[in-house]
Amino acid sequence: MTISISEIFNFNSAHRLYNKNWDISKNLIEFGKCSFPNYHGHNYKLEVKLSGKVDINLGNTISRNKICDIVNKEIIQHLDHKNLNIEIPQFSNLIPTVENIAIVIWDILNKIFENKYNLEVKLYETERNFVVYKG
Amino acid sequence: MTISISEIFNFNSAHRLYNKNWDISKNLIEFGKCSFPNYHGHNYKLEVKLSGKVDINLGNTISRNKICDIVNKEIIQHLDHKNLNIEIPQFSNLIPTVENIAIVIWDILNKIFENKYNLEVKLYETERNFVVYKG
Amino acid sequence: MTISISEIFNFNSAHRLYNKNWDISKNLIEFGKCSFPNYHGHNYKLEVKLSGKVDINLGNTISRNKICDIVNKEIIQHLDHKNLNIEIPQFSNLIPTVENIAIVIWDILNKIFENKYNLEVKLYETERNFVVYKG
Amino acid sequence: MTISISEIFNFNSAHRLYNKNWDISKNLIEFGKCSFPNYHGHNYKLEVKLSGKVDINLGNTISRNKICDIVNKEIIQHLDHKNLNIEIPQFSNLIPTVENIAIVIWDILNKIFENKYNLEVKLYETERNFVVYKG
Amino acid sequence: MTISISEIFNFNSAHRLYNKNWDISKNLIEFGKCSFPNYHGHNYKLEVKLSGKVDINLGNTISRNKICDIVNKEIIQHLDHKNLNIEIPQFSNLIPTVENIAIVIWDILNKIFENKYNLEVKLYETERNFVVYKG
Amino acid sequence: MTISISEIFNFNSAHRLYNKNWDISKNLIEFGKCSFPNYHGHNYKLEVKLSGKVDINLGNTISRNKICDIVNKEIIQHLDHKNLNIEIPQFSNLIPTVENIAIVIWDILNKIFENKYNLEVKLYETERNFVVYKG
Repeated sequence: MTISISEIFNFNSAHRLYNKNWDISKNLIEFGKCSFPNYHGHNYKLEVKLSGKVDINLGNTISRNKICDIVNKEIIQHLDHKNLNIEIPQFSNLIPTVENIAIVIWDILNKIFENKYNLEVKLYETERNFVVYKG
Repeated sequence: MTISISEIFNFNSAHRLYNKNWDISKNLIEFGKCSFPNYHGHNYKLEVKLSGKVDINLGNTISRNKICDIVNKEIIQHLDHKNLNIEIPQFSNLIPTVENIAIVIWDILNKIFENKYNLEVKLYETERNFVVYKG
Repeated sequence: MTISISEIFNFNSAHRLYNKNWDISKNLIEFGKCSFPNYHGHNYKLEVKLSGKVDINLGNTISRNKICDIVNKEIIQHLDHKNLNIEIPQFSNLIPTVENIAIVIWDILNKIFENKYNLEVKLYETERNFVVYKG
Repeated sequence: MTISISEIFNFNSAHRLYNKNWDISKNLIEFGKCSFPNYHGHNYKLEVKLSGKVDINLGNTISRNKICDIVNKEIIQHLDHKNLNIEIPQFSNLIPTVENIAIVIWDILNKIFENKYNLEVKLYETERNFVVYKG
Repeated sequence: MTISISEIFNFNSAHRLYNKNWDISKNLIEFGKCSFPNYHGHNYKLEVKLSGKVDINLGNTISRNKICDIVNKEIIQHLDHKNLNIEIPQFSNLIPTVENIAIVIWDILNKIFENKYNLEVKLYETERNFVVYKG
Repeated sequence: MTISISEIFNFNSAHRLYNKNWDISKNLIEFGKCSFPNYHGHNYKLEVKLSGKVDINLGNTISRNKICDIVNKEIIQHLDHKNLNIEIPQFSNLIPTVENIAIVIWDILNKIFENKYNLEVKLYETERNFVVYKG
């Protein structure tokens, strides 16, 4: 019998939604104000969920410290206070929608957790919209 | 590999829980103060979740604008600032519990989304209780 | 030196905004959908704030139990799961706006607290609007 | 077609994370400040989710009152304002991590609900971490 | 006797904290990661509070619609999905800290409300920090 | 013209409400389950508010880093994951009610801030009750 544990993180980044293969007016039609040229930004809220059996000696599946160390080092330091379009290699040819950001985060973390723990990522872009991705 | 996207909406409605086939005292036993005759109301909070593959050109499964346009037109305008028992045809013979409201919302939206997107509806009646329905 | 203590309460009521001296179209202009004839409703959230010196034997100004007993008896039982326009005498000639509801609550509580404690009432109608009243 | 209904509860307890088979320094390495000897505490937030078909006469799967009565009697009175390590028999030989508390709660409730309703328990220890358990 | 009414708004903007009279390393010492060159961003949450006497015919001090129309037109359209440093004239020579953004908002709104209503602005930059300004 | 800035912190502690000059039954009457002998605990949420003029070079009154360094060192490290009754000298003869905890925090911080900044402390014990103290 498995249990899932979730830890919550925050990062603050700038981005814009823009498809390089389209001109400005096509981008404006598809993405509206999210395509504005000088970027806007969000307080992203990230829930990282891991599942597994509870270790009887520790009372947990994986220690909270280990999760936080990994996510802070690999995700928060990577994305926080950054411009996702300009500074993050994963978005050099990928539009940084909340969907794609969640997939990028999942890909990074799942390699480190080595496909164990049935990783799931929930990412809020605002208080009004979020995505869930589990590979 | 699919991702789910959720958009959050609010509407404020009046209702009462009352089974027309029962007398007042039986209704009071089953529904308590929720059966009071002159209605009470809630700030309903609705999460609409859709799942699918990410379109590579748009970075999303379905645009946020399209979801919002449909939900605002078909659900929010239909239920907001209304008396669910009196004004909403779906509740003429159906008790407007939070369960039944969620099912009515799901039925309306799933027809419009044409059974695509694996639609799921989460509906909060108060900060202390909610339901989840996916057909 | 004084300290303030706040306790938070909830009640769910139906209401409509309607001035009896005006016709329907004038009400619609002034109050919009809030004037719809069959009522809508809200999850009201109430913060009751009292201020005073800390009693050295109890470590408080007034006990939480005393505040809760009074507010539950005088306010929550009075307003919860009621139709404010129809059932609450204070609104027989007063429009139950969030402003007037807060003033009615303050008037009831301040009589009971006998003008002590510098009573302040904060009332949320939705997560997006609230009022503060202190007499 | 089934629907899930969730009710939310709170309890405030003291605990420490401590494995009796290890010395203090090993506990400190594994659990950090959570192993401090004189206990700390949390405002636990509990979501109890039950699933089933909607009864056509009642408009629900199980009444909110019945859920609240059971959870308040069997869980909240059992754990609220208690020291989990000292006072709760289930933790006499089990470390009261948020994972184990959720499993204990699930085991108690699932017996009472007699394996019906596909019980799921979500337990927040803080606003930043929670677990989900469904047996 | 006056009452205050508050309306809540959101906008999402990019910014960086950078004093043009200092070099990069001095900016980094003073502002840390907030000075990073390519901008980051926030979901700003704005509470606009107005105080006054309650009009007996309307039951309010000023209509919610009027407040929302003004704030949406003058503030949200002005700042939402914008780069505060590049696109907002008020910040051409003013560092867009949360303090200065609140002051700019207050100055714009107070002119429109013509010094009536004892205007107060509360601005959250994240869930962990906010400012309050009342002129 | 001054502005206030608030930073939010959390700490998790155990406590009980118990007056040493009273017997157990008198304590039980006054404090209820909060007087239970083996302690319970809370996720305390602390808002530290400081007011002052905005420095034109920095765009703030006092840097967020300085506030966080002081509060983390002097308050969070002092109270977090501790038993307030047993381990905190300030409560050796003072009942650790939320009122008294707020006063103790204010006294510590106000000495460090040297009576500048018009310090105000808001302390939540649960999501349902909080105090505000400004000396």
